[in-house]
Amino acid sequence: MQVVRVALGERSYPIHIGSNLIGDAGLYGRHAQGRRVAVVSNNVVAPLHLERVRQALTQAGAQSVPVLVEDGEQAKSWQTLDRVMDALLAARLGRDSLIVALGGGVVGDLAGFAAAVYQRGIPFIQVPTTLLAQVDSSVGGKTAINHARGKNMVGAFHQPLAVIADVATLDTLPERELRAGIAEVIKHGFVLDLPFVAWLEENIAKLLARDRAALEYAVQRSCELKAQVVAADEREAGQRAVLNFGHTFGHAIEAGAGYGAWLHGEAVATGMVMAAELSARAGTLSRGEAERVKALIGRAGLPVRGPNLGMRRYLELMQVDKKAAAGRVRFILLDGLGRATLRGDLDESLVRESIAAALQ
Amino acid sequence: MQVVRVALGERSYPIHIGSNLIGDAGLYGRHAQGRRVAVVSNNVVAPLHLERVRQALTQAGAQSVPVLVEDGEQAKSWQTLDRVMDALLAARLGRDSLIVALGGGVVGDLAGFAAAVYQRGIPFIQVPTTLLAQVDSSVGGKTAINHARGKNMVGAFHQPLAVIADVATLDTLPERELRAGIAEVIKHGFVLDLPFVAWLEENIAKLLARDRAALEYAVQRSCELKAQVVAADEREAGQRAVLNFGHTFGHAIEAGAGYGAWLHGEAVATGMVMAAELSARAGTLSRGEAERVKALIGRAGLPVRGPNLGMRRYLELMQVDKKAAAGRVRFILLDGLGRATLRGDLDESLVRESIAAALQ
Repeated sequence: MQVVRVALGERSYPIHIGSNLIGDAGLYGRHAQGRRVAVVSNNVVAPLHLERVRQALTQAGAQSVPVLVEDGEQAKSWQTLDRVMDALLAARLGRDSLIVALGGGVVGDLAGFAAAVYQRGIPFIQVPTTLLAQVDSSVGGKTAINHARGKNMVGAFHQPLAVIADVATLDTLPERELRAGIAEVIKHGFVLDLPFVAWLEENIAKLLARDRAALEYAVQRSCELKAQVVAADEREAGQRAVLNFGHTFGHAIEAGAGYGAWLHGEAVATGMVMAAELSARAGTLSRGEAERVKALIGRAGLPVRGPNLGMRRYLELMQVDKKAAAGRVRFILLDGLGRATLRGDLDESLVRESIAAALQ
Repeated sequence: MQVVRVALGERSYPIHIGSNLIGDAGLYGRHAQGRRVAVVSNNVVAPLHLERVRQALTQAGAQSVPVLVEDGEQAKSWQTLDRVMDALLAARLGRDSLIVALGGGVVGDLAGFAAAVYQRGIPFIQVPTTLLAQVDSSVGGKTAINHARGKNMVGAFHQPLAVIADVATLDTLPERELRAGIAEVIKHGFVLDLPFVAWLEENIAKLLARDRAALEYAVQRSCELKAQVVAADEREAGQRAVLNFGHTFGHAIEAGAGYGAWLHGEAVATGMVMAAELSARAGTLSRGEAERVKALIGRAGLPVRGPNLGMRRYLELMQVDKKAAAGRVRFILLDGLGRATLRGDLDESLVRESIAAALQ
């Protein structure tokens, strides 16, 4: 088992990475002992893992109740959040109780936000069961639900007490979701670590074949890279924004295609192709480097072209992106592979061209 | 103008207390300059004060949009919060924008919570226009909406950048709301400051007559007292709970009577009578002191008897109170006048007797 520590002062926490960890009572330990615990999960993940988690919690001395939500992005809604609140209140969870988020990014975002606002905040532990959640939402404390006008528009920064990233849970992950997770792994390389890009170019086939050692390393390195950025900028005032590489375009694709039609990682993958194209057109990335971005994404079995929503719709959807400062859209560009930069001064024509170059 | 500073490290902020402050551009100053600002208010307060606030914001260099919600406790709902979010998104407010909460406690709680969760948190300034909001919600950063199963069950700790408490706005406050505010002022004396109790016993008539100097002092002293407690315990882990004196009973009264039937301050007033009675029965307060509590509340024109909901309903409603630790209701008792203590070991029969002694 590897442990990556996210250093955030009194909000610091460990990410435990390894195989067959979710049933390890010691990892819940003192966080759970003597407490009431709500295990928030969905009806796809629960049949696979819920009982093992609840047994571990019982062993750790906790009293647990399951709270199940529907599968998919639509669970990140007011309605579902309200139902979770209702279940927590019905189970008489007090302020000294704990939430365990068992599932992918949707469950993590929803349950994490529920923990952030239930009775003005209670602690939570994340048990991510998708690759995407293990490398992305497990680091940084971002929680949120969606709004009709945009994704993740309502949320909070709420750090977990601990993360338990069990790569054995990835055995049952659908192929498409595995690839979507690889998109975020690759992203960490593109914006932060050229040697990791090279490692990925060599090991992409192993990751797709779910080689456990390769997965553990990919999760560990991704978490380390993201943890460094988050430690320096917890609330995304500056540096942390680089982690949104591909996300401005990606959010537009997700929202435009209708939430759920594209997986987040797929949309980000295509968004990265567009952002690399934009970087090349803005002169911060060579044409060869932009092709290398596109090639790795393609080899991971991820889409390199976006849906044809119409240019106006793309620009409109990007406008409501959270990175818009005083109404102006800012983009994260690659400044060479392994380095990113935030730019708010780009000509709209470059943005249009970059989208047009990567449409289906 | 008096300034009370709430000391919370990097989240410290000033409370400006005086007359005719809401139109003072200098008080919004750098917080507002160059920003988009949403002024959240309701349809009762807006006609009285909105234009002056927006003019001051314009003078301070901000671009403001009004966001109006309905008057009354029912505005602390998912539905209204969602509408506020929608208005903020429609006005294209980015993460670098600001919310100004103009109104009483409901507007402050709702707009503050909106600020806490909009795009994972943006700053806000509170402009409380009721006595209750000036002495209570302006200190401590508690924000929340209600849930069908209990009041303030969904919320966040989110400190404002500044509070502008203008006692001139109390001129138009309905009599009943003035008294409800006095309930919280009195509470600060009961739990924290015996000399302030004596001052209140002498000056209660002046407060009811809206003597401006008396109001300024009452607001200032209340804010100072509350600020000391909050500075020592921002997230209500321990000491801060004493500020909930009367609230466990009060919340039950509010919820049981139907939100809105009783004003929060009225319910807290009666709750304090019940809690003083409980203190007397538990032996931490003399019978004479308990009578002094009841007498001051009565002289303030506040109710000293609660609605007859039935004993079972009272106990049930108190059970979901946030101060319930591991399912057990804890009470704040007076340990003599001017001092409070938290007790979780009380016999239920004492609680029943204390409620019964103060029913209509």
